[in-house]
Amino acid sequence: MVNKIEHIGIAVKNMEDANILFEKLLGVPSYKSEEVESEGVLTSFFQTGESKIELLMATKEESPIAKFIEKKGEGIHHIAFDVDDIQVEISRLKAEGFVLINEAPKKGADNKLVVFLHPKGTNGVLVELCQEIK
Amino acid sequence: MVNKIEHIGIAVKNMEDANILFEKLLGVPSYKSEEVESEGVLTSFFQTGESKIELLMATKEESPIAKFIEKKGEGIHHIAFDVDDIQVEISRLKAEGFVLINEAPKKGADNKLVVFLHPKGTNGVLVELCQEIK
Repeated sequence: MVNKIEHIGIAVKNMEDANILFEKLLGVPSYKSEEVESEGVLTSFFQTGESKIELLMATKEESPIAKFIEKKGEGIHHIAFDVDDIQVEISRLKAEGFVLINEAPKKGADNKLVVFLHPKGTNGVLVELCQEIK
Repeated sequence: MVNKIEHIGIAVKNMEDANILFEKLLGVPSYKSEEVESEGVLTSFFQTGESKIELLMATKEESPIAKFIEKKGEGIHHIAFDVDDIQVEISRLKAEGFVLINEAPKKGADNKLVVFLHPKGTNGVLVELCQEIK
């Protein structure tokens, strides 16, 4: 069971420009910036209602964000849903036939355990599940 | 000022299959299906938290959804933000330099007035603003 859209991830080339643009669009400034070194990404978060917009910029060439932009250009990269218990959801979704990119949850940005579903099994949508680390 | 993510639009090829898949993913069934003839799309809505997932299937060849899938494949098509007064937001965003695809709001699915911002001005993201029609 999914609680809500936790965030929408957007791949950008230039974080400084994108921060200015999304502040204008949403009417609120970015409230947090965080680097996830293992993924080679710099993030920037905006709150909108109960959900967040997460801007993502590659910090190295092998970053999944660099590869995404090379292939598809800037734009919406993934949708993340908040769940209470990520292990329960992983078991449930695997039993339903969904394919995971990483089998075990890993530490993501914003103090979360995260797992990604393969977009081939979800109509081309890269779906992230995330659970707050208590 | 943007209130929240109203919905995420996802372009799909086969609505029947996609409805089954998203019901499994989200743990809730689609609560509404609606055709927007002017746009050549069939929609299907799922509630998740305060936001919705809107599946979009083309009903004719000239549909923007058919063109999107031809060019990019299935996947996330747009992000829609809820606003109180769409005219106020249009004026505000035009003054900020954003480019609109349609200058005047038009009637969209789900009893909304909608307007789209050009993705060239928003890091490749197709942004919809929508206001509930009272």
